[in-house]
Amino acid sequence: MTKEIFTTICGLFIIEKDIVIDKVIFKNLADYENREKAVSQLLNKHKDAKQTTNAFPRLKEYLPTFFQQNITLTKNKIRESVKRDDLIIQAVKNIEDIEKAANSFAKRLRDWISLYLPELDENITKHEKFVDLFLEKSKKELMKELEIEKSMGTDLAEKDLKPMKNLAKKIQDLYKTKESQEKYIEEVMQDICPNTLQVAGPIVGAKLLVHAGSLKKLAVMPSSTVQLLGAEKALFRHIKNKRAKCPRHGVIINHPLIACAKQKDHGKIARHLAAAISISAKVDYFGGEPTKGYELREKLEKAFGKKENITENKDKNKEEKQNDN
Amino acid sequence: MTKEIFTTICGLFIIEKDIVIDKVIFKNLADYENREKAVSQLLNKHKDAKQTTNAFPRLKEYLPTFFQQNITLTKNKIRESVKRDDLIIQAVKNIEDIEKAANSFAKRLRDWISLYLPELDENITKHEKFVDLFLEKSKKELMKELEIEKSMGTDLAEKDLKPMKNLAKKIQDLYKTKESQEKYIEEVMQDICPNTLQVAGPIVGAKLLVHAGSLKKLAVMPSSTVQLLGAEKALFRHIKNKRAKCPRHGVIINHPLIACAKQKDHGKIARHLAAAISISAKVDYFGGEPTKGYELREKLEKAFGKKENITENKDKNKEEKQNDN
Repeated sequence: MTKEIFTTICGLFIIEKDIVIDKVIFKNLADYENREKAVSQLLNKHKDAKQTTNAFPRLKEYLPTFFQQNITLTKNKIRESVKRDDLIIQAVKNIEDIEKAANSFAKRLRDWISLYLPELDENITKHEKFVDLFLEKSKKELMKELEIEKSMGTDLAEKDLKPMKNLAKKIQDLYKTKESQEKYIEEVMQDICPNTLQVAGPIVGAKLLVHAGSLKKLAVMPSSTVQLLGAEKALFRHIKNKRAKCPRHGVIINHPLIACAKQKDHGKIARHLAAAISISAKVDYFGGEPTKGYELREKLEKAFGKKENITENKDKNKEEKQNDN
Repeated sequence: MTKEIFTTICGLFIIEKDIVIDKVIFKNLADYENREKAVSQLLNKHKDAKQTTNAFPRLKEYLPTFFQQNITLTKNKIRESVKRDDLIIQAVKNIEDIEKAANSFAKRLRDWISLYLPELDENITKHEKFVDLFLEKSKKELMKELEIEKSMGTDLAEKDLKPMKNLAKKIQDLYKTKESQEKYIEEVMQDICPNTLQVAGPIVGAKLLVHAGSLKKLAVMPSSTVQLLGAEKALFRHIKNKRAKCPRHGVIINHPLIACAKQKDHGKIARHLAAAISISAKVDYFGGEPTKGYELREKLEKAFGKKENITENKDKNKEEKQNDN
């Protein structure tokens, strides 16, 4: 029987005929992680030793230490596995939570205020403006602004208005919190994926990260997958039933280049945009220069942003010609 | 053809053979509302006039005024229809919204903090305590309190902790808002239904109002309906399918008298409690003395609160006897 070398978290063991004939004990995890030198020294001493992967039954005395050290190692690995993209993902999800809560609060406030001044709910559709107006102005001022002489709502005492104002302030707070979380996302993206930020923008970029699960996953995705991230439901509907159209874009639909383009160009722009995002994510993940994004974004804008302007000009020319005729 | 008298919002008209032969015009809505005198004066003049309900075709010139005045009248009626129990209902629903939002925020915060200090999420189950601890103490202090030497979470820079603290503060705010809305509900209930408040308590009482729709509706309900308010789903399940048990209580289950009692007594106490609440709601709605509630509550507590103590004593006596043997 030949000699065997068994590498463990506690140390290196040379085993011959089930007996440990030589060993190097590691004092701590750092020794284990920088074990290269110790291994080669030991192998120099025992040149014919072969690697083995399981010699635990012969090393019973070390089992408690193995157990303890392994747990410490796992904890370290878990601690190290937290990347800043995990933080972005939490912040993006938090923004979604905040939007949901602010919406449900605003609906409740509209219901509540309708007992007092129903005309405000009817005339102001945007939640933020509705809340601001209610907090800033008195009933008289509001009625003047809405150009109504007599309101259908009842007059309420200050003590009955207080809980409504309280709720309205909470809604304002939530909108502010949402803004500061968005700012935070942009800052972190500037650090970890500047190129993706430049090409996709903060909101679309962060949502892509959430759907992909991490920057690494986004970087190794084919661009066609990036194009459809967030449209999984529509995609599987299409795969199951060919009559359902194949989706052309997922969350990237909110990107200004697509959102501002004509309906018929959406698919084409989405394809090019997804390609550019895919490239920038790869550059970010593998540590390329942080300005590649500008280049890609510029190219896209030249191809699609300006084209629209050209067609607009063409249309104008046509109109002018028609006018001339 | 005899004379007819036609009462409108604009005035009184005496009509004979399709021609208006006499009239009294109201200057404003107050005149219309105090029309008794004018009507009897006019009827004295035209003793044989009969009431008619539709003479509009003969009064075309007044149609725009009718229209205008009727709208004003309706608006007034709507304004007057708002009662303070409508305000309570909004506040109660708002508390439910706040609880929902605070819960979803707290879950998000737990997820987020788990990247930083997962042991906090594992050890502290109550959301409020979790948020307070995170805001008050540093990671070191928290680890000391949780008695852990090394955390599995990664260390984060202050700028990455800021959005988490921001969210935590929002959750604290929401809990505070909830408290102040609860206080408001109690105040309003003290005004409009002191007896119901005394018997049912603020939360159960307010929830009953929400389920009933208004104090008036709660007052005219039979007590068996009050007993099951909030358990409609279970009740209809029972009616449809006799194998499903009939529910014994709706929202009143949260009343301390039931919540603290033994399971087998729940039905009986619920029945008596619902009867007392029903009486107190009637007293409140029809303006009876505001101390009836104390009496009812005392009776209930004598019957059910103390009885339990007696049975407890009996059990103790038994135990003592057994020990003697």
